[in-house]
Amino acid sequence: MGKIVDVKFLVKEYDYEKPFHIANNISTSSTNVEVQIVLDNGLVGYGEAAPSYRVNGERVETFPSLEPFVKEQLIGMDVRNYKRIFDIMDGLRCASSLKAAVQFAALDAISVESGLPVHQLLGGAKDEIETDKTVSIDTIENMVKDAKEIYDSGFRVIKIKVGENLKKDIETLEAIAEVTKEAKYIVDANTGYTPKEAIAFAKALYSKGIDIDVFEQPVPAESIEGLKLVRFNSPFPVAADESARTRYDVLRLIREEAVDFVNIKLMKSGISDALAIVEMANTAKIQLMIGCMGESSVGINQSVQFALGTGAFVFHDLDSHLMLKEEQFRGKFKQDGPKMIVR
Amino acid sequence: MGKIVDVKFLVKEYDYEKPFHIANNISTSSTNVEVQIVLDNGLVGYGEAAPSYRVNGERVETFPSLEPFVKEQLIGMDVRNYKRIFDIMDGLRCASSLKAAVQFAALDAISVESGLPVHQLLGGAKDEIETDKTVSIDTIENMVKDAKEIYDSGFRVIKIKVGENLKKDIETLEAIAEVTKEAKYIVDANTGYTPKEAIAFAKALYSKGIDIDVFEQPVPAESIEGLKLVRFNSPFPVAADESARTRYDVLRLIREEAVDFVNIKLMKSGISDALAIVEMANTAKIQLMIGCMGESSVGINQSVQFALGTGAFVFHDLDSHLMLKEEQFRGKFKQDGPKMIVR
Repeated sequence: MGKIVDVKFLVKEYDYEKPFHIANNISTSSTNVEVQIVLDNGLVGYGEAAPSYRVNGERVETFPSLEPFVKEQLIGMDVRNYKRIFDIMDGLRCASSLKAAVQFAALDAISVESGLPVHQLLGGAKDEIETDKTVSIDTIENMVKDAKEIYDSGFRVIKIKVGENLKKDIETLEAIAEVTKEAKYIVDANTGYTPKEAIAFAKALYSKGIDIDVFEQPVPAESIEGLKLVRFNSPFPVAADESARTRYDVLRLIREEAVDFVNIKLMKSGISDALAIVEMANTAKIQLMIGCMGESSVGINQSVQFALGTGAFVFHDLDSHLMLKEEQFRGKFKQDGPKMIVR
Repeated sequence: MGKIVDVKFLVKEYDYEKPFHIANNISTSSTNVEVQIVLDNGLVGYGEAAPSYRVNGERVETFPSLEPFVKEQLIGMDVRNYKRIFDIMDGLRCASSLKAAVQFAALDAISVESGLPVHQLLGGAKDEIETDKTVSIDTIENMVKDAKEIYDSGFRVIKIKVGENLKKDIETLEAIAEVTKEAKYIVDANTGYTPKEAIAFAKALYSKGIDIDVFEQPVPAESIEGLKLVRFNSPFPVAADESARTRYDVLRLIREEAVDFVNIKLMKSGISDALAIVEMANTAKIQLMIGCMGESSVGINQSVQFALGTGAFVFHDLDSHLMLKEEQFRGKFKQDGPKMIVR
């Protein structure tokens, strides 16, 4: 019972509905790896890696060559001893999205075998969460149009990508705020500003009466002092994303009092580090949001289950599957507009 | 399925085989509260509170009066959403052993319902752990006799209580080391020394060639600077026990670099804070041991399952059930001398 007899890696490419443009990066598709853990009774646990070279330094073309190593480690194990699988995958530090996929596939396998859904295996804190949707970088006119469409289709939290052009970014925010009055805004510079640009951006919006709920990763990943400078000179909560990949990154951010928020992404941290970050942030009273890379519904399901189980997040930025072309929805939850539900 | 229909508190008194004497405290019995969470299908999850007035400030005679409150909160809930039960019990800050018992009873109920043992619900990191056994304060002659008996009956880690008389404590350690050559020692002063006494004690043993594996809570609980002073002036790893009750205590110890070890006890922290402390300590590379108050085998089972599941502990000090008179062993593990096994 629970014995792992096979582990499979399946490379799958998903196209974006339209090019996804963030500061200094444009994607037209996401090449992901689906992980299947097969048990002796034939039941299968599913996970998905949506790699990021920009954030994690990992190259997806290396993943198939890791299949024999992971197989050799996992075959014969009792999947219910998942902490041992977590520990093995913690070693694969240069394939963190693959670590996430294998770790989640283990939990999913336990879940199908025991009848306890993953969100309850992780605590069952919530039955429902609500995601934002993202406006990627484009002309001001197109960004305003996208924001209005998102708002009109029922989303109440809008994520807006900035960080390439300070003056245009301020104008964009002003124009979006004009047509989406009741929305909450997560503004993400994806490391694009200097600390002083970030402070100028925040102060300009504040002086125009625009409220930002989270100001995400304004400065380069390595600039912890920069994050702290923005935090202590901005009226808006500052979040670390690219600066917060591992549990060790977050302990340092806590020690240095550098941020108000951390954006957890399973693709950066895996389940193991994400669980540690939740506990550390809850203790240090740092707020949390959860984000994604280019996951399909298989990968987004991982973050939905994690968010429902731990109940740890103020904001959920789990919209990649809404932007990718996919033949079939495969999440183990119901999507109803912005809502993700397991009741 | 999984619906809670009743919660019962049963007060039970267990006598020690012989009086248990630690620095400035002697116990002849432990008055515990057994918690039963009853599900709609008749299955029952068990937990146990072994309160400590000295460490937690909690009074066991108040616990029965909390039964209606806990009942009112829990009845009707799906036990599988255990994080919600954890959060409710986190509010009972002046009944931390009761918090532990109810939180564990929830996990135990999920376990009997899903067939997934609690140690696997928590990760299944290990199949087997080994406990120490404790020599309580007595005459040097009796302490040496106890230590030799413990060693001869197969235990390889001996915990020795000190902290009332520096000179006698040093002599005791010397005499014990003489007759238990290969043993490892955890020396616990239970807050009994001043920082300077603690340093003098450690240096005296070191100069006599006696090695201590953990020097537990040498100084008063509130003296974080004292712990740090001992840590940086002792050749032995220093552990916080009475100083480390909540996740917030441990975050402070980490920030202040005050200790090498933390002694987690479920009776101080409950399952919720214990899980957070494991993640924080693992991240900060602080070592962990797990200890107990006056639990019977029902309560010790909680810590055994927790230790096996998380695999987080270098030392296990889970011997109270070996010192209490109990009609029947009720742990969900096998006890074989010092070994606790679930294989």
